Amino acid sequence: MVAKYKEHISLKEVASILKENLTPLSKRVRLSTTDTNSSLVGKVLMEDVYAERNIPHYPASAVDGYAICSSDTSYANPASPVEIPEGKFLWVNTGAFVPERFDAVVMVEDTSVEGDSLYVFNAVSKGANIRPIGEDVSKGRIIGRKGELLTPFHKALFAAAGVEEVEVRAPIKTCFIPTGNEIVDIRETNTKQLAPGKVPETNSLLLSELFQTWGFHLDVLPLIPDDPELLKGSIKQAVEEYDLVLVGAGTAKGKRDYSAEVLAEQGKMLFRWLRMKPGRPVMMAVVKDKPVIALPGFPVSTLVASWTVVFPTLQILKRGDISESYLSEAVKTAKQVKTELAEHYSTRQGISEWLRVQCGEVNGKTYSWVTSSGASSMMPLTEADGFSLVGEEVLELPKGSSIEVWVVKENDWINRAVYQGSNDPGIEHLVGYVRDRGGDLIIRSVGSLGGVTALARGECHMAACHLLDPKTGEYNTSYIKRFDINDEWDRILLYRRLQGLIVKKGNPKRIVDVADLTREDVVVVNRQPGSGTRVLLDYLLSQTEIDPKQIRGYDNIAVTHFDAASKVAYGNADVVVGIKAVADALDLDFIPLVEEPFEVIIPRAFLDHPGVKAFRDAITDKVWKETIIKLGGYKLEQ
Amino acid sequence: MVAKYKEHISLKEVASILKENLTPLSKRVRLSTTDTNSSLVGKVLMEDVYAERNIPHYPASAVDGYAICSSDTSYANPASPVEIPEGKFLWVNTGAFVPERFDAVVMVEDTSVEGDSLYVFNAVSKGANIRPIGEDVSKGRIIGRKGELLTPFHKALFAAAGVEEVEVRAPIKTCFIPTGNEIVDIRETNTKQLAPGKVPETNSLLLSELFQTWGFHLDVLPLIPDDPELLKGSIKQAVEEYDLVLVGAGTAKGKRDYSAEVLAEQGKMLFRWLRMKPGRPVMMAVVKDKPVIALPGFPVSTLVASWTVVFPTLQILKRGDISESYLSEAVKTAKQVKTELAEHYSTRQGISEWLRVQCGEVNGKTYSWVTSSGASSMMPLTEADGFSLVGEEVLELPKGSSIEVWVVKENDWINRAVYQGSNDPGIEHLVGYVRDRGGDLIIRSVGSLGGVTALARGECHMAACHLLDPKTGEYNTSYIKRFDINDEWDRILLYRRLQGLIVKKGNPKRIVDVADLTREDVVVVNRQPGSGTRVLLDYLLSQTEIDPKQIRGYDNIAVTHFDAASKVAYGNADVVVGIKAVADALDLDFIPLVEEPFEVIIPRAFLDHPGVKAFRDAITDKVWKETIIKLGGYKLEQ
Repeated sequence: MVAKYKEHISLKEVASILKENLTPLSKRVRLSTTDTNSSLVGKVLMEDVYAERNIPHYPASAVDGYAICSSDTSYANPASPVEIPEGKFLWVNTGAFVPERFDAVVMVEDTSVEGDSLYVFNAVSKGANIRPIGEDVSKGRIIGRKGELLTPFHKALFAAAGVEEVEVRAPIKTCFIPTGNEIVDIRETNTKQLAPGKVPETNSLLLSELFQTWGFHLDVLPLIPDDPELLKGSIKQAVEEYDLVLVGAGTAKGKRDYSAEVLAEQGKMLFRWLRMKPGRPVMMAVVKDKPVIALPGFPVSTLVASWTVVFPTLQILKRGDISESYLSEAVKTAKQVKTELAEHYSTRQGISEWLRVQCGEVNGKTYSWVTSSGASSMMPLTEADGFSLVGEEVLELPKGSSIEVWVVKENDWINRAVYQGSNDPGIEHLVGYVRDRGGDLIIRSVGSLGGVTALARGECHMAACHLLDPKTGEYNTSYIKRFDINDEWDRILLYRRLQGLIVKKGNPKRIVDVADLTREDVVVVNRQPGSGTRVLLDYLLSQTEIDPKQIRGYDNIAVTHFDAASKVAYGNADVVVGIKAVADALDLDFIPLVEEPFEVIIPRAFLDHPGVKAFRDAITDKVWKETIIKLGGYKLEQ
Repeated sequence: MVAKYKEHISLKEVASILKENLTPLSKRVRLSTTDTNSSLVGKVLMEDVYAERNIPHYPASAVDGYAICSSDTSYANPASPVEIPEGKFLWVNTGAFVPERFDAVVMVEDTSVEGDSLYVFNAVSKGANIRPIGEDVSKGRIIGRKGELLTPFHKALFAAAGVEEVEVRAPIKTCFIPTGNEIVDIRETNTKQLAPGKVPETNSLLLSELFQTWGFHLDVLPLIPDDPELLKGSIKQAVEEYDLVLVGAGTAKGKRDYSAEVLAEQGKMLFRWLRMKPGRPVMMAVVKDKPVIALPGFPVSTLVASWTVVFPTLQILKRGDISESYLSEAVKTAKQVKTELAEHYSTRQGISEWLRVQCGEVNGKTYSWVTSSGASSMMPLTEADGFSLVGEEVLELPKGSSIEVWVVKENDWINRAVYQGSNDPGIEHLVGYVRDRGGDLIIRSVGSLGGVTALARGECHMAACHLLDPKTGEYNTSYIKRFDINDEWDRILLYRRLQGLIVKKGNPKRIVDVADLTREDVVVVNRQPGSGTRVLLDYLLSQTEIDPKQIRGYDNIAVTHFDAASKVAYGNADVVVGIKAVADALDLDFIPLVEEPFEVIIPRAFLDHPGVKAFRDAITDKVWKETIIKLGGYKLEQ
């Protein structure tokens, strides 16, 4: 069958397709202007509003002073003030009524009272310091126009002008229908005991939070299993009650892919698939004049499909138009910042790509790092400082490329120390303590050698390493000397960590030392080249003259202690070299190998950086130290 | 008495004073992560959050395809696919559980099913297309850090990781206490029948809307009259229950000015008066460890004092710090735009000033106009496109100065036609109709001559005029020819308007023609030089050989028909020249003088401008035409 609708549309086509096919909501509501518990902000006015009364509605004093007759002051000057007798003047506060027998107000600074008389030092003209009736708003004037988006200032104006209710466009009623046999309603399930293959339904949480930040509400409907008839019925009912219907998952080309058929059968398909990564499998239709959007299932895909399709749809329904900058508005960008990409990144030509990035400022330069490219990963979303949309014309982003980041976190990066180097749970625990001290800490786990290199290149404020020199058996010094040519770096020996072999609980494969790694029934997971732990393993292998090629899984890479040990915990590998703290955390067995010094290196020029200062103070914190000791395998040096 | 606290502080001192004297709120609450009707966005996390389970918690397929044993595919290639018999493969959707007897997933695109067998066209390695347990988040990992501001992404992450509740900083409880004998609670009063001197309390509406846009809630307490003892009692009670207390008015130096005494007596004063216009009379104290801010009474002063003092106070209480860009965050700036000031503006050195501005784009240049400088005027707030903060070092802003505008309205100015010229109620009614057609219209009432001049200078898209040539008795042509040198302007005769003498209902002064304006008992109000109505009056005076000096109030200026006629309606003048529509609207008597053509002039280069097109279509609208006719004194030409 040939599709009768557009497929694989570009991001740039979305707005025009929506504008062609959708119209603003016609429903209206009348809202009170005097209720402090509801809000008019962001509502669209559906009528011209006319002032019911004047503001001010009486001649009002514009100053604190005395109401007088201007003719009584005609000859006043500082050298010879005029005396005005009792009864011919009246004290008025700012805003007070000036009775008709007076025609001006003289400021208190230009007067003095002696006995019962008022002395005036300067002549005032008729009408001086009196706000005439209707000065701000005259009765009958238009004070709000049809189509206007209401600001925080309108409510007070309407109420002051005697308008007690205004007609605005009704709120857009949106619902989300989660679908899928594998999905479990999170509100009805103890998520800790989910069966394999069962996925907690969390996209409704993501979507409702997005709607909240956009100023809309989302109703989450009961989830429905994979059944075209049930989906059909659910959509049919939803378009009766709602102005916009979102359907979860069912948009890929798998066996369950009947959403397209259901939508095409019930209404007019507008498009299927966006040339966007992630978020490609999104489709949209109009069913009984109501827009229906089928969203992809992965959380990051749901998110970017919401930004690119759901948000502009809400704009059309609300305002009849899509703003030029709708994408950055959808993302709720606090600011847009040009940054320098700190690592090379490859993208695909012909497809727009959303990057999640973290940022840091070192020596006045703002760097950004891409945190992940997986559509299924939620963690990088919460860690991201912002997002960058790479256009479909871009193929490669070499290290050093300038990319614009749409910042979503209210961060003043000036207080943020950038840490690159060895991955360490103790450092991860430190972040809260650094923040308590007014600083911030961003951790890039690039391995010990990566950290020292980045420090030499000026791409971070501090590095951390535990690098064994195979020639000398000494830690760190030789590596640091190679880069710290002018001896400008301070070294802090933070603690010693116990490294060893991490194996499954009960050590089922009876692994006792490094020699066991060559066994046929043993699969390892390794750390990335340049990490101190990898250097350690290679050193131990060379000491025992083991060829890495003999080891199953030697090229199987994990970039943090936790990720590596998790692979042992969940059956992907039998053993990994790692620190005791992680073995303890995951309830794994641990065979000690060496105790290594873990050093933090800070160029002296950065010692007064507010983030670095907070870091240096945080590592003296007693509570943090106690936490580290409890992790296991740490020996504090200070 | 010598004040023991800072007076007349600069805007720049506010943040440091707040940081020195305030600490973040210590109260905490636990919130659900699975409730789609509440939100975590913008909350501050008060604990490190650890994953309670892995994401994914089972080996999950990363694609739609078949789970297989990788060793069964070792020799597969497109030329000779391998056959895998029934029972040794299993269909898996993306995200589905991959049972332990399989160790890889082959994408559906790389397979075909024939009979009961699966044919695989490419070899896959162990673990291919399987997301290992804990790939996104491993159990025990930190997934939220103390001090972190939660984003729309956190809730779904927490819920997916089995964390059902998180501890966040409690919402900041703020109250507002309106004060003043002149104030009337708007919820308890029919505001249309207010006595002179009585002011409806609308600052609570403005403040609650501001709090709403900032994501906070404001409780409005009962208003209290001007009585130091009552104020003292109210503050005493409020600081027990609330984290931040706002007090309305009572901050100027009038007779009622006891707020300073009350605050100084009950707590520690932090400062009094800001070197800011408007909003100077603001003061702040700490009473029983709670910040108390006394706000000025005028609405614009309340607003800017809220931006500059209340918002950063909320930031400190919520996050322990004030962001660098707190002012633009308080204003809720959508974007910051450099504009060219279209009119000269004088400010005062040593004082920061907030300008309310409107903007328009003509020929690629963005212009801004200051709408008003009065602290008591609410209308210019709702009309403003944005605000501009003029630093205390600035004295004069000549026409053409570059000023940065913090835009608060979501406007795409590209669709906005800029109208300068004669003030006319018919045009004012047109705005909604222009908006209905996807355009926008900004009206600058600068008088007929001002409009034609601005058009010649390229500062608007259209002008409107009704300019009588005293020499020829003909309208508009001679003025237009003077500026439209190359004959590039189109003229649209919109309608004819009836001009006349507007007098009080019943014409108590028995005014019959222009000659009466010279009477001793008659005070006029005049329109500004360059307005068509002024030109008309001057023409009529010269015709009857009246010297303007003979007329009382000739220098008494109003810049719109409405403002001018209002002065007659509310007793500031006896007569004004103006159009019948306005006399009718204000229920005034009208003595006809002349019928004048009202023309709109548009350079042909702008005819296709989206705003101008919408305007040209809007003037053909039947409903608008009917409205105009109903206004009175209009005769339509088309």
